[in-house]
Amino acid sequence: MSDEAKCSKPSCDKFTAINELAKRRGFFWSSFEIYGGTGGFVTYGPLGTRLKQNVEARLRELFVKKLGIFELESSVIAPGKVFEASGHVDHFKEPMVECQVCHTRFRADHLLEEKGISSKEAEKMSLDEIAQEIVTHGIICPDCKGSFGKPQRYLTMFETTIGPYSGAVGYGRPEAAQNIFVEFNRLFNISREKLPFGAIQIGHALRNEISPRQGLIRLREFTISDLEFFFDPEDQSCRFIEEVESDVLPILLCSTRLNECEDVTFFTVREALDKKIILCEWQAFFMAMAKRLLVELGVPMERQRFLEKLTWEKAHYSAQSFDQEVLVDRWGWVEVSGHAYRTDYDLSCHMKASGVDLRVYKEYPVPVETEELVIKPIMAKFGPVYKGDAGKVAAELAKISADKVVADINKDGYVMVGPYQVFKEQVEFGYQKTVERGTRFIPHVVEPSFGCDRLFYVALEYAYRVKDDRVILSFPRCITPIQVGIYPLMSKDGLDTKALELQKQLIQAGFMTDYDEAGSIGRRYARADEAGVALGVTIDYDTLNDDTVTIRDRDSWQQVRTSIKDLPELLRQYFTGKIGFESLGKSVQSK
Amino acid sequence: MSDEAKCSKPSCDKFTAINELAKRRGFFWSSFEIYGGTGGFVTYGPLGTRLKQNVEARLRELFVKKLGIFELESSVIAPGKVFEASGHVDHFKEPMVECQVCHTRFRADHLLEEKGISSKEAEKMSLDEIAQEIVTHGIICPDCKGSFGKPQRYLTMFETTIGPYSGAVGYGRPEAAQNIFVEFNRLFNISREKLPFGAIQIGHALRNEISPRQGLIRLREFTISDLEFFFDPEDQSCRFIEEVESDVLPILLCSTRLNECEDVTFFTVREALDKKIILCEWQAFFMAMAKRLLVELGVPMERQRFLEKLTWEKAHYSAQSFDQEVLVDRWGWVEVSGHAYRTDYDLSCHMKASGVDLRVYKEYPVPVETEELVIKPIMAKFGPVYKGDAGKVAAELAKISADKVVADINKDGYVMVGPYQVFKEQVEFGYQKTVERGTRFIPHVVEPSFGCDRLFYVALEYAYRVKDDRVILSFPRCITPIQVGIYPLMSKDGLDTKALELQKQLIQAGFMTDYDEAGSIGRRYARADEAGVALGVTIDYDTLNDDTVTIRDRDSWQQVRTSIKDLPELLRQYFTGKIGFESLGKSVQSK
Repeated sequence: MSDEAKCSKPSCDKFTAINELAKRRGFFWSSFEIYGGTGGFVTYGPLGTRLKQNVEARLRELFVKKLGIFELESSVIAPGKVFEASGHVDHFKEPMVECQVCHTRFRADHLLEEKGISSKEAEKMSLDEIAQEIVTHGIICPDCKGSFGKPQRYLTMFETTIGPYSGAVGYGRPEAAQNIFVEFNRLFNISREKLPFGAIQIGHALRNEISPRQGLIRLREFTISDLEFFFDPEDQSCRFIEEVESDVLPILLCSTRLNECEDVTFFTVREALDKKIILCEWQAFFMAMAKRLLVELGVPMERQRFLEKLTWEKAHYSAQSFDQEVLVDRWGWVEVSGHAYRTDYDLSCHMKASGVDLRVYKEYPVPVETEELVIKPIMAKFGPVYKGDAGKVAAELAKISADKVVADINKDGYVMVGPYQVFKEQVEFGYQKTVERGTRFIPHVVEPSFGCDRLFYVALEYAYRVKDDRVILSFPRCITPIQVGIYPLMSKDGLDTKALELQKQLIQAGFMTDYDEAGSIGRRYARADEAGVALGVTIDYDTLNDDTVTIRDRDSWQQVRTSIKDLPELLRQYFTGKIGFESLGKSVQSK
Repeated sequence: MSDEAKCSKPSCDKFTAINELAKRRGFFWSSFEIYGGTGGFVTYGPLGTRLKQNVEARLRELFVKKLGIFELESSVIAPGKVFEASGHVDHFKEPMVECQVCHTRFRADHLLEEKGISSKEAEKMSLDEIAQEIVTHGIICPDCKGSFGKPQRYLTMFETTIGPYSGAVGYGRPEAAQNIFVEFNRLFNISREKLPFGAIQIGHALRNEISPRQGLIRLREFTISDLEFFFDPEDQSCRFIEEVESDVLPILLCSTRLNECEDVTFFTVREALDKKIILCEWQAFFMAMAKRLLVELGVPMERQRFLEKLTWEKAHYSAQSFDQEVLVDRWGWVEVSGHAYRTDYDLSCHMKASGVDLRVYKEYPVPVETEELVIKPIMAKFGPVYKGDAGKVAAELAKISADKVVADINKDGYVMVGPYQVFKEQVEFGYQKTVERGTRFIPHVVEPSFGCDRLFYVALEYAYRVKDDRVILSFPRCITPIQVGIYPLMSKDGLDTKALELQKQLIQAGFMTDYDEAGSIGRRYARADEAGVALGVTIDYDTLNDDTVTIRDRDSWQQVRTSIKDLPELLRQYFTGKIGFESLGKSVQSK
């Protein structure tokens, strides 16, 4: 017996209902259950894998296909040097306390959170302050009631060695950004040495969480989409800004937050830039794109906000950071993307650590001419005075700034060069012109970074609804994991053969299909609704006569009848959003 | 200056030429170059990422979309228990020797290979035999000429700990199969408890190679596609076998190999099964699919073969294994997929290690009735004799097999039950019928396993050709990373605007495009050929008048002229293989 119909009803909260449904229908579940499970690892089943791929395909569509952002794929494991340079080895740490009795370890900030101290507040506390709060709130070990030792910060990267027994430290990447920064020169080359350009990597990342929790929200292995957009800090103009200028962004400002208020303020992108709410055009652009993406995934604007990060919340290198948050049933506002203006921090770090020049050259619009005072020794007057040391004196003189030479001579009549006096008449003064045609600089970066598992989760939660006591996953058309279900009314009299033929034809035409002949047609519809199958095509006895089929809409349960020969083209238009359900055929009475 | 045009000419071998081209045009390169590089890690650039995704999409198309194989996505890191149970912790080891002078470590089998001992031969050697060969061939440290110590086997999995400082060992998965086996019960549930079904996972995997080499061929982090197909060993029939029955498979048989010969024998799938060359229908089916896949990727049948593995080459649990190999320029025959009949090995291991039942239940076609002899104590005759012990004697009697009771009584007139004699007249004999309706068994598995980086590499090498001293990547249409290049003849007079409009339209229609306005049109074509751009669309002054464009074919350099309004539909038909280049428009003289 499968554990069908246990609790996908609204009696429990959405998080519980979705997790149960996800497990039963194969969206996702906790990995390694047969070994008792290991917190923070998740397996996406057939429906989930497809939904996740569809969500990730939206990111590619928006950024790679439409904007020409480079996509790259690199390794999850990286040599220690990379994360030493990036600052992760020093800073990617979380406060932890250990029970002095049973030696179980806990995230200190999570324990504080249970006492009403928000993670944002805990983030800015020192270890001493955390220790103080633990005493103040009388926090003891939840497992054995023992008392805790001194809090410490622990590195939350997975560590390994590269090359067996070589001792060369490697880490599992905690994000996908460093792979982009370390390859900057190569990417710049591919961009034909032109700024601005961006690069995105969508892939697995690892964070060795002390206590993973909240289902898909806080995993040890997850999928991240990091986009690094490189530009000249002296030319921050975004060539796509006009397209999003009138998009409205709901922003929870620092100033509002400091007043203990959670009200968002609405700004158009244009207003946010003009009022310097958002400092960088590219950052504003990507925030607008992020909002559009979430709308596409089914989250209306009213359930989204951009949280401006306070000074102590953002990384020290970030000039400005916003978290895009979505309201979810169990956990309140949850971050789905982060938008950081990282300045030149990362490239600078890697340049310093590697010794490789990561600057780019830019020509000045007009070459810059400068005149420089130069002092030249008159060697004919050096030789007789300094004899064999003449060359050495000339060389030492060249090391002294021309301005100092002039000042000393003007003051004293001579300038000291080591133990020797050099007099005015021994040198010539002159001006040398230099022309600088350009300069080298480190590009600046804005980074929109999406948590793909969280995008997946919010898409699932926002698709989840209950109608007539039945669960329906009303996914937007562009991400629905199965587009067309194909159902022979009976699995006999050639209806099944006809249905399988149709399935083959639709697969050929590029659609994701599912064939189901088990149980009553009503039961099959219900099963399909719960899996989010967008349309159901039923093959009945009329089909054998006139080659028409019934199409049923998952969301409205309405039905239309259309001819098989028109189906592929109609479906294509439907799934690319060109036509609505009613245009798929002639309306018929639902059964 | 980019390092253009350095050596992509046939003067160097294809491997070198492709690696140079790959680096320069952004297909792939060795990761972390700025830190001196770390062997075995590769970064796929924009073109490479797309090509790799297209190759992986072919796997999904063949297996997930068309055959309904489940796809899942799980974690790269897994708890130690998983790989202890699977046998990897004990067996996933390679022979290594350490120089006694400079302490550098080398793969012993690779050192032997340089002395003409094939890796296949080395695989079957014991450590003592390897030591002997090192002495025989006088192999010394290539770095310092020191002598080697005793060979040892080292674990080539990446090891880490899960949960910081918890001590819980975790490993980077060396393949993607175990994630499927450990989730068998859940997958079986999703398949509505029906066999056969399959599950595939395409994802990163890690092997901590001692000395990674051969570019994309032997990486420390790579992408694997593992498909596990579960079936009832008593019903091995493949429902798709008819579709591939006449497909020809070139097989290098064990018997041929043992005669030191490398000639392949050609069998149709039907013949191979009838002659028991391939034992299992499902395995034969997947081998046929693998051959078709490689043909799709551009590798003709003559450059493919299936190597039947010798007893000592295959894993001990495998009933039969074949390697699909492709001939490449530098390395000779290279494995691109492995086909193993893994029997019930993996599920048995995990069942034993986890204590969770991974068997499936199957009903017999006809219930099996059995009659069993039973002995019943006559309690009325027990009480008076055994008094308070009567119950205990009855219980003990029940533990003795009925056959033994009958035999003893027939022989001695009584049977001993503990210290008591029980006589014939104290018991009743009878027969009890039992009906068994079914049985539980562990499904068998065949596994086709593809190395995606190798598929990528062979696709690249087989696309590579030189024409008129210029490099062209003639990718098959279905995997070409950029489908349409869009070129305004001049970047002025509105030609550029018109071209950008067209690009937008084609992106909207779902095509992968590239816009290029730099340099002469000939130079742009050359650049596009080298990147494998399938078609070039040129916008010229006529376009402004009559809305027609020139389409140029990468492979033939032929050109046709067609109207913009027909373009999306024509391109769609072209890229789905429905029409050829000449059907895209009216032939025009190439410029």
